[in-house]
Amino acid sequence: MTGKFITIEGVEGVGKSTNIAVLEEILRDRAIDYLCTREPGGTALAENIRSRLLDSGGENLAALTELLLIFAARADHLDKCILPALEQGKWVVCDRFTDATFAYQGGGRGLPRDCISALQSMVQGELRPDLTVILDLNPEVGLGRVRRRGAPDRIERETIDFHARVRQSYQEIARAEPERCVLIDASADPDSVRLMLRAAVMDKLPELR
Amino acid sequence: MTGKFITIEGVEGVGKSTNIAVLEEILRDRAIDYLCTREPGGTALAENIRSRLLDSGGENLAALTELLLIFAARADHLDKCILPALEQGKWVVCDRFTDATFAYQGGGRGLPRDCISALQSMVQGELRPDLTVILDLNPEVGLGRVRRRGAPDRIERETIDFHARVRQSYQEIARAEPERCVLIDASADPDSVRLMLRAAVMDKLPELR
Repeated sequence: MTGKFITIEGVEGVGKSTNIAVLEEILRDRAIDYLCTREPGGTALAENIRSRLLDSGGENLAALTELLLIFAARADHLDKCILPALEQGKWVVCDRFTDATFAYQGGGRGLPRDCISALQSMVQGELRPDLTVILDLNPEVGLGRVRRRGAPDRIERETIDFHARVRQSYQEIARAEPERCVLIDASADPDSVRLMLRAAVMDKLPELR
Repeated sequence: MTGKFITIEGVEGVGKSTNIAVLEEILRDRAIDYLCTREPGGTALAENIRSRLLDSGGENLAALTELLLIFAARADHLDKCILPALEQGKWVVCDRFTDATFAYQGGGRGLPRDCISALQSMVQGELRPDLTVILDLNPEVGLGRVRRRGAPDRIERETIDFHARVRQSYQEIARAEPERCVLIDASADPDSVRLMLRAAVMDKLPELR
């Protein structure tokens, strides 16, 4: 038996961590064995690449180099972490996945979608998340929250236009794949967001009801 | 004006360094401004990836992860080093390039050629070497030389069958692209190899005559 693969997406400061905790609570309450991980990251190589992409040392990376590093990290993460967990029947909750690549590197940086799709097929084959939660928020609000946390990373320092394109790409993904994705208004108060998330998850994954 | 791009290829221990010195001498004698570099490598990121691929820490890397890291390194190398040099009119001599990826990751590891071709187009566009020197040698002879140098790296420790497939892939590339490639018998004595190399280079690049 294969576990379910859930990803959570959204612009900076949208509240992914809080809502991942809600997902984890749902799974724990049902005694479902799960793995919680993140991208880029989840393995030693991929965390190393993450540091390079978020630190200022990555300032002068070309967009295509960044894209290839992200997919190298993803290939390692899938190989060592996500696929073995799913094959053991564990559920996997992942903080960002390939939709983030379409949103940030495609929408944000303007790399061609067909490059990203080609790499997606190469690295993932037919694997797609069973459910993708997209938290939607005006990036000015999200970045305001992020700034209160401390020094912004390389991605957080991008222009507001960049982040607006990221949000728009996420909205387009949600519209294009309504079966897989649910878009949640993350500007609401945290309790309402939590209730919307729970309702959406139960609706999309009947085995949790 | 754009410089010429020369790559040199072959199995482990084939004598690339010695023959790169011959190429450099030809260019220096003609007062041609050139850059000598290597793959994977040539930039801080790419040298970091090289270490990861050659050290035993890379032992458990999946073939596809390795392939994506190699192309990420290549994208950075092209962006920061090879393309700017060519655009300034410098010639570039590179110790291994994408033919090595077809030979080692394609022939050696058995990754699909169409994956490698797709990445080649993505990263290089239409750029191909103006001349590729493929030094041909029985890999048992080459590995014998390498072993005398010290502890073998992760690639040198591969099976003899692996290295035989690499050699065969190089031979196939030379047959498939006779305009771009010249295959030189590297089992001959060093003076003869040098003479063959000089003759081949003059033949392929008339501007050097």
